[in-house]
Amino acid sequence: MLRFADDGRVEDYEKWAYWPGKLHWAPTRRRRRRDEGREVLIRPAAGHDWSSMWPFMRRIVADGETYSYDRDLDSGEAKTMWMLAPPGHTVVAVDADSALVGTAKMHRNQGGPGSHVATASFMVDPERARRGTGRALGEYALAWARSHGFSGMQFNAVVETNTAAVNLWTSLGFSVIGTVPGAFRHPRHGDVGLHVMFRRL
Amino acid sequence: MLRFADDGRVEDYEKWAYWPGKLHWAPTRRRRRRDEGREVLIRPAAGHDWSSMWPFMRRIVADGETYSYDRDLDSGEAKTMWMLAPPGHTVVAVDADSALVGTAKMHRNQGGPGSHVATASFMVDPERARRGTGRALGEYALAWARSHGFSGMQFNAVVETNTAAVNLWTSLGFSVIGTVPGAFRHPRHGDVGLHVMFRRL
Repeated sequence: MLRFADDGRVEDYEKWAYWPGKLHWAPTRRRRRRDEGREVLIRPAAGHDWSSMWPFMRRIVADGETYSYDRDLDSGEAKTMWMLAPPGHTVVAVDADSALVGTAKMHRNQGGPGSHVATASFMVDPERARRGTGRALGEYALAWARSHGFSGMQFNAVVETNTAAVNLWTSLGFSVIGTVPGAFRHPRHGDVGLHVMFRRL
Repeated sequence: MLRFADDGRVEDYEKWAYWPGKLHWAPTRRRRRRDEGREVLIRPAAGHDWSSMWPFMRRIVADGETYSYDRDLDSGEAKTMWMLAPPGHTVVAVDADSALVGTAKMHRNQGGPGSHVATASFMVDPERARRGTGRALGEYALAWARSHGFSGMQFNAVVETNTAAVNLWTSLGFSVIGTVPGAFRHPRHGDVGLHVMFRRL
């Protein structure tokens, strides 16, 4: 039995996991149950997940094509930055074979008078891309933000040549608010723009 | 005698101060010398400056009209956030009576492939506004960023109703890249937009 607060908000994100598709929220322990069309479970990240996350995260950061992080970022710095304590929230996506295939972190984008807009960051194992994991994580982040009372979500720096991401966020209702010209030094394409993307919730 | 590196870059920002107007850089100790038209000296912030900075900074943050900081930000959090160690840089503006009238901090806006774009934040004592201090700090930040090899400067969240700031940055060569709608909850105007502003260097 799924359990929601009256307003549809999941009461305790630490105990519940998101199943894309028809079945949305279920206890994290019920991992064997699968939504037929989608093969990914999203649950809160735990400290012991890091050793399964860092190898693909490290590769994505070192490639330098999609993230404005220092390409030689080390495991400790990355863990501090990515594994958020409440009110921030970090999740992992786990496939049907219990392999950790992606992760996302989400939190407010600004403080004080700007704290009603959320932001989020996403990484999917490049070797397990194109299976809907990014979309599932995006849907999860939007549901999380909505249920926490945020009125919008903003991405601050989407690399314009990362068309998979731009198209995914567009399909999830985001618009490009503006593009900072040449703000990203792409290792293959040279200086390219960084999109600011936003959608209301 | 002014001292520049061959490329026009000031060699050690800890020892030099910026004088708006014709005389640009001079040793910080030469504080009595004044550029005739402009009454403000900009020099690196020191720890002992904090007690003169925090009263007006606290008021600006508590007013909640221009900064996306928690309005109850305390002195310790603010000092950690504002007083940057290298490679970041924090300065104060001092008037002819040695009163501390403004401050700015500047640093890279993103890491890794985005680290060639700088950002900066500014606060001027509201009781000493409209005397060119903001412009002097802005010019200083641009000169600092240029001399440190940045190829652009980006402001991430300029409140659209803060017309003094928007007009100042526009006059200094910045353009509005885009506006995140309703991303700032203004205490008098309701939800207003946050401009992303940028200029090349």
